[in-house]
Amino acid sequence: MSDHAAVLFINQAFYHAFATRDVAAMELVWSEKAAISCIHPGWLALSGREAVMRSWAGILSNPESPKITCRQPMAYVHGDTAYVICYELVEGSFLAATNVFVREAPTWRMVHHQAGVSPRPPVEEVDLPPPTLQ
Amino acid sequence: MSDHAAVLFINQAFYHAFATRDVAAMELVWSEKAAISCIHPGWLALSGREAVMRSWAGILSNPESPKITCRQPMAYVHGDTAYVICYELVEGSFLAATNVFVREAPTWRMVHHQAGVSPRPPVEEVDLPPPTLQ
Repeated sequence: MSDHAAVLFINQAFYHAFATRDVAAMELVWSEKAAISCIHPGWLALSGREAVMRSWAGILSNPESPKITCRQPMAYVHGDTAYVICYELVEGSFLAATNVFVREAPTWRMVHHQAGVSPRPPVEEVDLPPPTLQ
Repeated sequence: MSDHAAVLFINQAFYHAFATRDVAAMELVWSEKAAISCIHPGWLALSGREAVMRSWAGILSNPESPKITCRQPMAYVHGDTAYVICYELVEGSFLAATNVFVREAPTWRMVHHQAGVSPRPPVEEVDLPPPTLQ
């Protein structure tokens, strides 16, 4: 698997853990060796594994957490560090996100996530689910 | 100069170019070799030097652009890639930002910037300018 594909794969693992509210999987996605940080939309910046993982435990255990899917991920690989820019579709609204990863052989692990409010991306570039009958 | 200090230095150069509306300095801060990207607050993600630099030329040439200063920068260095998390103080409101840099000897250059709305950081940690008399 190319670095580019591997980074997109760990990025997708992050959104899968998020969407399925899987705290154990989310803990595996994030680096345990490196300093990590996270800026949830509208939150203060969080630093350190304890604060970041506590935030995810709270978000993922909240039954009112909205559904989330990743759209249009683009990976940028710089040696042993990489980041993905993507949109997050959250119940009809969009966020834009930056996800930073570091290589920890044999895989990659997340070290930083920031998401913030975004306009709706151009329709022709968005992989939206099929419309449902009203 | 340590990598940590050098990364904080280029981060400060970014905010200096931003605050002084210096398009030439902003062009120097950003990498000319690597693929670059930028997510301005409330904008769609921009990819490629032409789109990113056009956005900065527009922002910096706008006489109504707000003043900006960087607060509480924290640098995370991973080999030849690094990122800074910081707050941006924009006329009394705060944004949180992620700024990604790559080493291009002898210096570092920016490859990605995302900023989004943030709560006000705790007062005791913020280096605010002195209050002015009303």
